[in-house]
Amino acid sequence: MINKLIDKIQKTHAPIVVGLDPMMDYIPKQIQEKAFQEYGETLEGAAEAIWQYNKGIVDATYDLIPAVKPQIAMYEQFGIEGLKVYKKTLDYCQEKGLVVIGDIKRGDIGSTSAAYAVGHLGKVKVGSRSYAGFNEDFATVNPYLGSDGVKPFIEVCKEEKKGLFILVKTSNPSSGEFQDQLVNGRPLYELVGEKVAQWGEEYMGEQYSYIGAVVGATYPEMGKVLRKLMPKTFILVPGYGAQGGKGADLVHFFNEDGLGAIVNSSRGIIAAYKQEKYASFGEENYADASRQAALDMIADINGALQNR
Amino acid sequence: MINKLIDKIQKTHAPIVVGLDPMMDYIPKQIQEKAFQEYGETLEGAAEAIWQYNKGIVDATYDLIPAVKPQIAMYEQFGIEGLKVYKKTLDYCQEKGLVVIGDIKRGDIGSTSAAYAVGHLGKVKVGSRSYAGFNEDFATVNPYLGSDGVKPFIEVCKEEKKGLFILVKTSNPSSGEFQDQLVNGRPLYELVGEKVAQWGEEYMGEQYSYIGAVVGATYPEMGKVLRKLMPKTFILVPGYGAQGGKGADLVHFFNEDGLGAIVNSSRGIIAAYKQEKYASFGEENYADASRQAALDMIADINGALQNR
Repeated sequence: MINKLIDKIQKTHAPIVVGLDPMMDYIPKQIQEKAFQEYGETLEGAAEAIWQYNKGIVDATYDLIPAVKPQIAMYEQFGIEGLKVYKKTLDYCQEKGLVVIGDIKRGDIGSTSAAYAVGHLGKVKVGSRSYAGFNEDFATVNPYLGSDGVKPFIEVCKEEKKGLFILVKTSNPSSGEFQDQLVNGRPLYELVGEKVAQWGEEYMGEQYSYIGAVVGATYPEMGKVLRKLMPKTFILVPGYGAQGGKGADLVHFFNEDGLGAIVNSSRGIIAAYKQEKYASFGEENYADASRQAALDMIADINGALQNR
Repeated sequence: MINKLIDKIQKTHAPIVVGLDPMMDYIPKQIQEKAFQEYGETLEGAAEAIWQYNKGIVDATYDLIPAVKPQIAMYEQFGIEGLKVYKKTLDYCQEKGLVVIGDIKRGDIGSTSAAYAVGHLGKVKVGSRSYAGFNEDFATVNPYLGSDGVKPFIEVCKEEKKGLFILVKTSNPSSGEFQDQLVNGRPLYELVGEKVAQWGEEYMGEQYSYIGAVVGATYPEMGKVLRKLMPKTFILVPGYGAQGGKGADLVHFFNEDGLGAIVNSSRGIIAAYKQEKYASFGEENYADASRQAALDMIADINGALQNR
């Protein structure tokens, strides 16, 4: 799957991923009203609104981008109905040829991590048969529990040719509280980064490992260090746009081959129509605004990469 | 909810929680066969088998115990059908008067943690209405992202009078890989423990905070240190039984008042009938074996507490 992701990045010339993290107040009124007319102000109604909203964005951007990253929390908050739309979104994006990164940040002790891995990346056995529960192409994983919490995910990836992005340095303001603590004079995130590189050696694709890392765009200097520490690790970079990251900050997340990183934007693309810059599209044409924001983001990052 | 949990522990004289972590190979054949006859070897069939299995255990133990802890991964691996049974299990246990600790180990950046918190502990807004997605009483949370990943959970707990158990030192063999790393001469888990105690001060119950910690039974010496570091923090202790923890190891997780900890056993109780000790119950009477295992565990822990 890492080979497919790289191939798609090269074909689209777009090292970006669109974060499908729908919040109710991003969803244009006309979509909400229609869904509520049909299902009432219910969880089903919310789910229908999210689905129509997502579909509009995917239809308007899938030819430009290699991948999407739905954030499961935004669906899980609506309970079962929300999770049904999460699954529907995954399936639809895969039909459109997109690589799907499930931003699930799971991680637990061995047998429990194995269950998450099976549910999201693999197949679960039921009697003599087996079924895929969610079927993402990549999943994000939290490493706090150590190797035996991560390895069951890697085992399933090997069976299914799927991949991971493991949290190393997250994009949020207080990520340093634990991640930056010095261990033998070096920040913990470097230690985690080294582990990710080691785990990655166990399952290499052609150029990069199937086991990637998450490093926030909001910490470019740390990205520079981590890039060198994990040369064969693909880095998923959240925090572009709304969280403050810019193209020029991101060049050091990439290797000299122009690969090695994929930059996520969620709000900046899916709710572009709410920004002054794209306001002229109007709420009705939110998907066209998202398309333009994706084009602008691609140009920003490619421009920065060419000028480095 | 921490007051209710303590009240129930005192009434049952049982500082234990039963981990409802169903695996297909724990489920007695008669239950699997019946479910597969009705629904086929499908995800629905697996879900029905899990539900009947859980119901049997809950019916046989609810009068003995204060709380249950369903591990969501064991349900999530069966996709939507599995999650429906997770919800059904939560609801049933609450009907039976049990406190429900959702072992979800979620944690993300601020707005995303807020969505998880709303989905599992609070209510999500849909137009002018609001709904509870999963509605656990407590949830487990992963602290790797720092305060701004944890605080949205605390905010929802305050609104809903619910609680958390935040991972401090987990029970698995490689938990030390990151958690034990020395920061200024002290292990990272102590730093996390101190933060949990601080966060806990923001939301106190009568004797203990609504914000608890997870510390594995498999590390009793660390439990002793953490107990003193977090005097007002209730500790959820996994790892008893199948993972190796014994009653005598656990006394230092408790305060002198006999409170302050609740010990989880999953496999040791729900699959008790598979142990030689309880084999005489037979597969048919798996729930009676679970009841006996719960009684034995309560006696083991209370005995150890009396003898300390």
